[in-house]
Amino acid sequence: MDSDYGIPRELSDLQKLRSLYQPELPPCLQGTTVRVEFGDGTTTADPADEPTITKVPDAQIITEHPPIRVGIVFSGRQSPGGHNVIWGLHSALKIHNPKSVLLGFLGGSEGLFSQKTLEITDDILSTYKNQGGYDLLGRTKDQIRTTEQVNAALATCNNLKLDGLVIIGGVTSNTDAAQLAETFAVAKCPTKVVGVPVTLNGDLKNQFVETNVGFDTISKVNSQLISNVCTDALSAEKYYYFIRLMGRKASHVALECTLQSHPNMVILGEEVAQSKLTLFEISRKIADAVQARSEQDKYHGVILIPEGLIESIPEVYALLKEIHGLLRQGVDVEKIASQLSPWASALFEFLPPFIRRQLLLYPESDDSAQLSQIETEKLLAYLVEVEINKRQKEGTYKGKKFNAICHFFGYQARGSLPSKFDCDYAYVLGHICYHILAAGLNGYLATVTNLKNPVNKWKCGAAPISAMMTVKRWSPNPGATSIGKPAIHPATVDLRGKAYELLRQNATSFLMDDIYRNPGPLQFDGPGADAKPITLNVEDQDYMGRIKKLQEYLEQVRTIVKPGCPQEVLKAALSVMGSVTEVLTAMSSSSGNTSSL
Amino acid sequence: MDSDYGIPRELSDLQKLRSLYQPELPPCLQGTTVRVEFGDGTTTADPADEPTITKVPDAQIITEHPPIRVGIVFSGRQSPGGHNVIWGLHSALKIHNPKSVLLGFLGGSEGLFSQKTLEITDDILSTYKNQGGYDLLGRTKDQIRTTEQVNAALATCNNLKLDGLVIIGGVTSNTDAAQLAETFAVAKCPTKVVGVPVTLNGDLKNQFVETNVGFDTISKVNSQLISNVCTDALSAEKYYYFIRLMGRKASHVALECTLQSHPNMVILGEEVAQSKLTLFEISRKIADAVQARSEQDKYHGVILIPEGLIESIPEVYALLKEIHGLLRQGVDVEKIASQLSPWASALFEFLPPFIRRQLLLYPESDDSAQLSQIETEKLLAYLVEVEINKRQKEGTYKGKKFNAICHFFGYQARGSLPSKFDCDYAYVLGHICYHILAAGLNGYLATVTNLKNPVNKWKCGAAPISAMMTVKRWSPNPGATSIGKPAIHPATVDLRGKAYELLRQNATSFLMDDIYRNPGPLQFDGPGADAKPITLNVEDQDYMGRIKKLQEYLEQVRTIVKPGCPQEVLKAALSVMGSVTEVLTAMSSSSGNTSSL
Repeated sequence: MDSDYGIPRELSDLQKLRSLYQPELPPCLQGTTVRVEFGDGTTTADPADEPTITKVPDAQIITEHPPIRVGIVFSGRQSPGGHNVIWGLHSALKIHNPKSVLLGFLGGSEGLFSQKTLEITDDILSTYKNQGGYDLLGRTKDQIRTTEQVNAALATCNNLKLDGLVIIGGVTSNTDAAQLAETFAVAKCPTKVVGVPVTLNGDLKNQFVETNVGFDTISKVNSQLISNVCTDALSAEKYYYFIRLMGRKASHVALECTLQSHPNMVILGEEVAQSKLTLFEISRKIADAVQARSEQDKYHGVILIPEGLIESIPEVYALLKEIHGLLRQGVDVEKIASQLSPWASALFEFLPPFIRRQLLLYPESDDSAQLSQIETEKLLAYLVEVEINKRQKEGTYKGKKFNAICHFFGYQARGSLPSKFDCDYAYVLGHICYHILAAGLNGYLATVTNLKNPVNKWKCGAAPISAMMTVKRWSPNPGATSIGKPAIHPATVDLRGKAYELLRQNATSFLMDDIYRNPGPLQFDGPGADAKPITLNVEDQDYMGRIKKLQEYLEQVRTIVKPGCPQEVLKAALSVMGSVTEVLTAMSSSSGNTSSL
Repeated sequence: MDSDYGIPRELSDLQKLRSLYQPELPPCLQGTTVRVEFGDGTTTADPADEPTITKVPDAQIITEHPPIRVGIVFSGRQSPGGHNVIWGLHSALKIHNPKSVLLGFLGGSEGLFSQKTLEITDDILSTYKNQGGYDLLGRTKDQIRTTEQVNAALATCNNLKLDGLVIIGGVTSNTDAAQLAETFAVAKCPTKVVGVPVTLNGDLKNQFVETNVGFDTISKVNSQLISNVCTDALSAEKYYYFIRLMGRKASHVALECTLQSHPNMVILGEEVAQSKLTLFEISRKIADAVQARSEQDKYHGVILIPEGLIESIPEVYALLKEIHGLLRQGVDVEKIASQLSPWASALFEFLPPFIRRQLLLYPESDDSAQLSQIETEKLLAYLVEVEINKRQKEGTYKGKKFNAICHFFGYQARGSLPSKFDCDYAYVLGHICYHILAAGLNGYLATVTNLKNPVNKWKCGAAPISAMMTVKRWSPNPGATSIGKPAIHPATVDLRGKAYELLRQNATSFLMDDIYRNPGPLQFDGPGADAKPITLNVEDQDYMGRIKKLQEYLEQVRTIVKPGCPQEVLKAALSVMGSVTEVLTAMSSSSGNTSSL
C-alpha cells in the first residue's frame, strides 16, 4: 500500500471527456425529498439459525436530513464502474446535507481493518469520475469474515463514529456485508451496513438484482476482443482459437459474449454440470465440431470457455475436492499426488503436467479453485488435438492438421473505462445507498430494477441481503453431509431462461456458418454507446413491475366481484382464488422483502 | 478455403455505421486529371546483379484512361485497413473508366497461384468498407518467392490479361513484389506489379514510407488493453504483468504503446541488441526495477516485451541460429539438443522446458524464429522470480513475494475495426495504386507522406521498391560470409530518433511514478477519434517536404549569385557549393527515385 491514493493524475483526452460525463438520475432520486416504501419482513431458509429481522415501518417520506458519517470500501475484485458508486454516494450525501462526511478506506478491506481513510471530496473525485479500476482507494483481501476481521471492522466503525458502512463487491462481499450487519446489530454498534452489487461476473442475480455493475463493460470489452479474433480466424482460416473468459463459477460472461460476437461454440459450465459431461466427452464434442467443419473445408474457429468450466466437470470437481481437502490438512504439495484416491489419482496422472501444477494451487477464499490460474483452454485444445490425431490415424478424420491458439481474457478487460450503462447504474446505486442509510436500514443491498428501460424508467429499491441468501447442503467427504452457513450463492445461467434459449436457437448456425458479428470497441457516443447486455434485454426480469401488474389484477377482481355481482361469478372467483391461494401458500416456503424508493 | 468469400454478412450497429464512412481524398487525387511527376532513376546497392532500371519520362498529365484489368491479393498477414486498399483501388478504377475490372484473388497468394478470383463490385464491398480483417478475400501463404510460385503468378497474370497486380503486405510481400516486377519485365509480361505498405508491425519504414496501414489501429487496441492492465495492477497492487506484443523483429509497436499507455517498463529489442545485453542481464535489470519499487512499497507493475526481443538477445540468437541450421539439415527435433555446440547446449539445458520446446519450432519464411509462439514474457517472469528469490535469501531483497501474470497481445488486436486514420490511409493508397498503373510504372510502392497533417495536406507518391532494398552480409556458419539477395529489411527503432528520445526522457518517471495513461477504447467520434500514432507525430519524416525546402534554398542561392553580384559573394558561394557537392557525391553511394502524384 502506498500513499498515492486519490492523487490527481494525467488523463488522456478520452478519459477527460468521460470525467465530465454526468450520469442521469431516475425521477424518484431527483430533488431532496424521497419517498421510501417498505415491503414485508423476510426470512432466510436457514434451518439452523433464526434470522434477525430488522423491523421497519410501512412507509415514510424522509424530509429531515441530519449530517451523517459514512465509510465506503472496495471489498470484491475490481469491476468497471466501482468509482461511480463512491461518486453517487458522495453526491447524494452532499445534496442532502453538506456537513455529511464520506470516508474511503484505503487499500480495501485492509484499510477498513486498520482505519486508514481518505475523506472523499469533489476535488479528489474529479479524475476518477466514470473511470475504470479501483485505484482511487485500492483493494486487497476480498473477505471480511474471520472473527479478527469482523472485530477490526467493528472497532473501526465505532472509532470513526460511522452511521453507515457501504461495501462494494460481489456475492462474497455482500454475504460478508449481511453477516457484518447482523454482528453490528447484536453488538449494538449504530453503524448500518449497506451492500452494492458490483461484480464483473454478473452472478449476483436474483429477483431483486437484474445485473451487476461492471458486467456490461466486461462483456463489451471481451466481445470486442473475441470478435477481433473471429475476424482474424476467418481471414487466415488456419487456427482454432480457444478463449477462456474470466467470470468465476457461473458462465454469464461467456453467454453474453456469445450472443454479442457469435463465435462458433461455447461450452457453458451449467450445461456440462446438467448433462454430467466428462472431460473426454467435452473434448470429443469439440472434436466432432472440428470434424464437421473440416467436411465443409473449414479449418478455423473460435471456442469460448468460461473459467468456471473446470469445476463443472464432475470428475475434475471430485479431484479438486480431494486436492483441496489434502491441502487444508496441510499435506505438502509434492506429496498430494501419492495420497489421492485410486480413481482421482488415475485422472490426475493422465493430465498434462502444466494442468497438474495448476490444480494443486491452494483454493480461493470462497472454496473454489484458483480459476484464473487454471488453463482449461489449453487442456481442452490439447485433448482435442489428441482426439483429432487419433481419428486421423483411424481414418475417420480426413482434414488438415488441427492448430489451436489459446487465450485468457480477463485482466485486460477488468480495468477498462466503464460503459455508459455501468457509469449510470453505479452512480444511481451510490445515490440509493444514501437513502438506505437515511431510512436507517441495516443489511440491505441497493437495487435498481427495470434496467432494460431508459434511466428515467428505472425503479430504485433496496432489499435485505438475507433474503438473497440460501443454505447449501454439501458433502466435504463422501458419505457425510453437512449444512453450510447462509450465503449468497452465485446465480448460474438459467438453462430454461430466454437468453439460453436464444443461444440454443442459433447454436448450429454459429457453429457452421461463421456468422461472426463484431460489436466493435466500446463507444461513448453514437450507435452502440447506449447498448445494454443482450441477456438483460431478453430476460424478463421486472420483478417489481410484475408485482405491480399482479396488484392490478387483484384490483380488477375486486372491482368485478363486489356486492351485486352475479352468484356464479362470485362462486367461480371464490373457487379459483381458493386454489390459487392454496398453491401459492405451498410454494412460498420463503418470502422476500423489498423496500422501494 | 471455402466459397464464402465476399458474401454479405450481418453487421453490428457500429459496423454498419462504419461501413457508411467515406474517407476523404487529398486534393491531388480529387477530380479525374492527376499530374504525375517523376524523380531520378534508381539503383539498388546489390554488388551481384545490375538492377533493371525502369525508364520513365520526366513528367506527365494523364488524361486518357482506357479500361484496365487489375488483380489484387492479400499477401502479408492481416492488418486492419487492408479492405480499404481494395475499396480505394476499385473506386479509382471505376471513376476513371467504369469498364475497368478489379479481380480479387481468393485465399490470398494460393488464389493467385491457382487463378481463383472474385470480381470486386460495390455490392460486394458494401459490408467490408472500413471493416477489419482480410476475410473479403482471405490470405494464406505469406510469400510469392519460389520459382514455382513466381511462374504460377506469371501464368495467372497472362491468362487473366491483367494490366496490373496489386500486392498488399509488409516487408516480405513487398520484397516479393519487387522480384515479381523484375521477373515479369524480363518475361515481357505486360502486367505491372504494385506494392502497398500494409503491416501492423510498422517496420516497412524508410525515406518514402512514414508508417504502415494497420499500425495505428494495432497500437491503439493494444494500448487500450495495456492501459486496462495498468489500471488493474494499480487497483490490487499485487501483480507484475509481463505483456508480450506482436510486431515481429522490430519494436515499433512496443515503443508506440509505451508512449500511449505509460507502463512501468519496456525492453526494446534494439536497446538490447545495441548494448549486447544477455538474458541474465535483462532479468537482473527487471529485478532491479522490482526491488527499487518494493523500496517504495510498490508490488505491482506492467512491463512490455516486443515479441522480437528473444532474437535480439545475442546468446539466444546464436542458439536459435544453431537450432535452425540443424532443422534445415533435417535433424530430428528430438536429437537437436545433443548436436548443439557445448556453449549453446549449456544455455539450452538451462532454459525451462516450455521455452526449449518453443525454440525448437521450425523457422518462418523470413528465417526468423516463430516469434508469436515463443513465450519470452514467461521466460523473463520466471528468471526475474528466480533472481528475486535469490536476493531474498541473500537478504538484499526485503519486499513481499513477487507475483507475475503473463499476456501475449496480438491476435485480439489484429482483427479490429480499423481506426479512422488507417481507413483513410488505406483508401488513399488504393487510389494511388490506380495512378501508378495508369502511369505504366512497374515495381513501385504506393506512398503517402506528410501523414501527420490532415488528409488535405497529404502528399501522394510512389517509389520503386528496389530503392528500399538493401543487401545484408550474413554468416550462416561461423567463418563463412555470404551475401544475401536484395530485400526490404524491417526498419528497427531508431535509437537516435525523437520517439526513442521521448521514451528515455520519461523512463524513470514511468518506472517509479505509475503515471499510467489510458487512451481508452478506439473511438470513431469525438476526442481521440482523429489521434495518430505518437511516434508518427514526433518524428520528422517529411522527406518530400524537405526536398522541396532544399529546392527553395538552391533557388535562393541562384537569385543571390547571378551576373552583377559582388566578386566575394561569388567566390564564397563557389567555395561552399564545391565542398557541399563533393561531400554529397561521396555520401551518395545509392540514390532514391520517387514519383509524386
